[in-house]
Amino acid sequence: MTNFIDRIADRSAKIGILGLGYVGIPLALSISRSGLKVLGFDISDERIAQLHAGSSPIRHIPNDEIVAIRNAGFEATTDFSRSAECDALIICVPTPLNKFKQPDLSFIEATMASIAPHLRSGQLVSLESTTWPGTTAEVMLPYISDAGLTPGEDFYLVYSPEREDPGNERYNTQTIPKIVGGHTSDCLAAGKALYGAFIDTLVPVSSTQTGEMVKLLENIHRSVNIGLINEMKLIAEAMGLDIFEVIDAAKTKPFGFTAYYPGPGVGGHCIPIDPFYLTWKAREFGLHTRFIELAGEINARMPQYVLDRAIEALNQHGKALRDAKILALGIAYKSGVDDMRESPSVLVMELLREWGAEVSYSDPHVPVFPPMREHDFDLSSVDLTPQTLAAFDAIVVLTDHADFDYEMIMQNAQLIIDTRGRFPPDGERIWRA
Amino acid sequence: MTNFIDRIADRSAKIGILGLGYVGIPLALSISRSGLKVLGFDISDERIAQLHAGSSPIRHIPNDEIVAIRNAGFEATTDFSRSAECDALIICVPTPLNKFKQPDLSFIEATMASIAPHLRSGQLVSLESTTWPGTTAEVMLPYISDAGLTPGEDFYLVYSPEREDPGNERYNTQTIPKIVGGHTSDCLAAGKALYGAFIDTLVPVSSTQTGEMVKLLENIHRSVNIGLINEMKLIAEAMGLDIFEVIDAAKTKPFGFTAYYPGPGVGGHCIPIDPFYLTWKAREFGLHTRFIELAGEINARMPQYVLDRAIEALNQHGKALRDAKILALGIAYKSGVDDMRESPSVLVMELLREWGAEVSYSDPHVPVFPPMREHDFDLSSVDLTPQTLAAFDAIVVLTDHADFDYEMIMQNAQLIIDTRGRFPPDGERIWRA
Repeated sequence: MTNFIDRIADRSAKIGILGLGYVGIPLALSISRSGLKVLGFDISDERIAQLHAGSSPIRHIPNDEIVAIRNAGFEATTDFSRSAECDALIICVPTPLNKFKQPDLSFIEATMASIAPHLRSGQLVSLESTTWPGTTAEVMLPYISDAGLTPGEDFYLVYSPEREDPGNERYNTQTIPKIVGGHTSDCLAAGKALYGAFIDTLVPVSSTQTGEMVKLLENIHRSVNIGLINEMKLIAEAMGLDIFEVIDAAKTKPFGFTAYYPGPGVGGHCIPIDPFYLTWKAREFGLHTRFIELAGEINARMPQYVLDRAIEALNQHGKALRDAKILALGIAYKSGVDDMRESPSVLVMELLREWGAEVSYSDPHVPVFPPMREHDFDLSSVDLTPQTLAAFDAIVVLTDHADFDYEMIMQNAQLIIDTRGRFPPDGERIWRA
Repeated sequence: MTNFIDRIADRSAKIGILGLGYVGIPLALSISRSGLKVLGFDISDERIAQLHAGSSPIRHIPNDEIVAIRNAGFEATTDFSRSAECDALIICVPTPLNKFKQPDLSFIEATMASIAPHLRSGQLVSLESTTWPGTTAEVMLPYISDAGLTPGEDFYLVYSPEREDPGNERYNTQTIPKIVGGHTSDCLAAGKALYGAFIDTLVPVSSTQTGEMVKLLENIHRSVNIGLINEMKLIAEAMGLDIFEVIDAAKTKPFGFTAYYPGPGVGGHCIPIDPFYLTWKAREFGLHTRFIELAGEINARMPQYVLDRAIEALNQHGKALRDAKILALGIAYKSGVDDMRESPSVLVMELLREWGAEVSYSDPHVPVFPPMREHDFDLSSVDLTPQTLAAFDAIVVLTDHADFDYEMIMQNAQLIIDTRGRFPPDGERIWRA
């Protein structure tokens, strides 16, 4: 272990990052800036070429940051045999759900299968993907054991969940405290040496399973609180109360309350997905995760609620949704990002289209509707002007980017169905949904 | 209205407080300190005599504060006809549930019935009790209308929920921002004049219904988050993980996560009760409050879980619960208070006794087990010494007062079943529950 720690300390170590996406790229930046060498791995030739060209694949990361680490020696490759060059291998691949809402660890398994033949004594492997408690010990470990290596003796096995928050201007990879769990105490020590080189604050935990549970708790907490406030929205609206006014007043309590806001559903690659990893694993212990399932159900119902409110609002004006011209305002999964993964806006657009509406969208962060596996819209973002706005029968406010001109929208829209509390509802021209 | 506002401003107004308990007493202190005269009302002769004797009925309020306001002119009475002397009447009575978990507004109704014959033009009535949205307009208003008065014309009707947090050393009645809703805009203006005289920050809302919903949201948020973490505890323990370690690691995330802690259930006069006020009212709108009901169910199950763990821990040591000597550590409903209302510790004690255990308790804040409507224990608090601790087969840690000597308990207890994460579990002598 002294050797591993020394190589981190004197910056002679090379760190492999497997998976160059929303987690791997910011991590590569932080590690490279610390003076360690970084070798990136991805299965996409296109992604590798883009990085070598000094072009950032992520909107909130400027090109010059990619150029800077490339100039400092950052390389990227699709050749996983080069993992043998690395002292540490950090796995940052997606952990989605399959269509039965069950964990899909195929990216982790494929990555481990790719590097397994090249694993060697003295290396460290760290998993950063969100996953069920036990994945590191039950899924990762066999690849290492089969390679004849033993974590804690001649190898280090670590779990350290990513906590990236795209668009967060206050915290970044380096300043967000990082959970580190080791398969053994020596694995933990090696993991702390690695992450301590480029992360300000480490939070060691007693096992990889604990680390896995920590990350799930964080995202379950969000999913359930969003589910709760979505349910409260339905009740408040039935009672004629404005849930956004209620939340803004409640959050003046200086203890014991944290504001969460309702919306058209939940999106992104974490909140709608991660909690069900625990649901799946809990069944092995004969347990049900009732809060997770209730939150999932209520959050998943929200696009339908938005549709219902749009139908109701149009109906009050004597219009059917069929052939109505509807503008979806904001289609990224949250404010300030260009990420479309699991965006509930798209589900609302699908429903509007199914009902025969003529659907357009406007989102300055998404100039052209991207190719998506499960959705197909041949659309480009509509420029917002008084004329374009007035031409729509209704505007459905879905993602409240800060750069929309809300005053202009307010003045020119015929009808507003607002899921974000940006406009004062009057029950005639401006509706909550 | 000018007259009402002037009388508040020049401190010639007299404020009646109806209900001299955990809410009314701190309110009387704040109002009296602002220079306004205070007349307290309660149905208990004993409570009135106690206050006139300068004795505080609430442990965390010292006698000298009662003496100080008495010297400044504070009086208390059981004669509700004296409400006619008051410019404003603030109602601080309990809003419990009946045994079918339905709202019991009998204290509000009885109070209104007592003062109704004496209501007069120019007065303000404010309700501070937590209750379902619509109570002020649907339950309070008829008493005022029947008296021939019209809120907004010759009378002011206000809802302003209490946000007391007994034991909170950082915030008090004066410094906790206060929600104020009026039945009309003039009612709101009068309410702001009244509360502005002794509260630092007011939060006006658009209606009394909104104010009622705000208070419910605050407590529903807590109930659901405690329910969630209790469910997560069950899952973590089944997986062999320590939920307290998981929470402490998760809360190092500097955004998007707020720590809540599991326990033996939920207690106090708010969290187990208030949410069901919304459940009841929501049915009128054909809606179910699924998160509230799930949280209520899981939280209510916790005492049984603690019992099960105690049985399991004793069993591992070859002992039955029957005839075992068990010490319940902490019986107030939360740390640092003497309040026993709805304390889950008492439910655990009941279960232990039903199973034949010989139950004792230790709580420095509750020297003698108080008379309770639904519970009967003829017990006094056991002094904790190495000898007394060692004499018990097991200690069940229920309320983690700061003034327990945890080190001494750790060293001398035969077996510890810990619901508060105060001791490091070893699965032999120290158990989580």
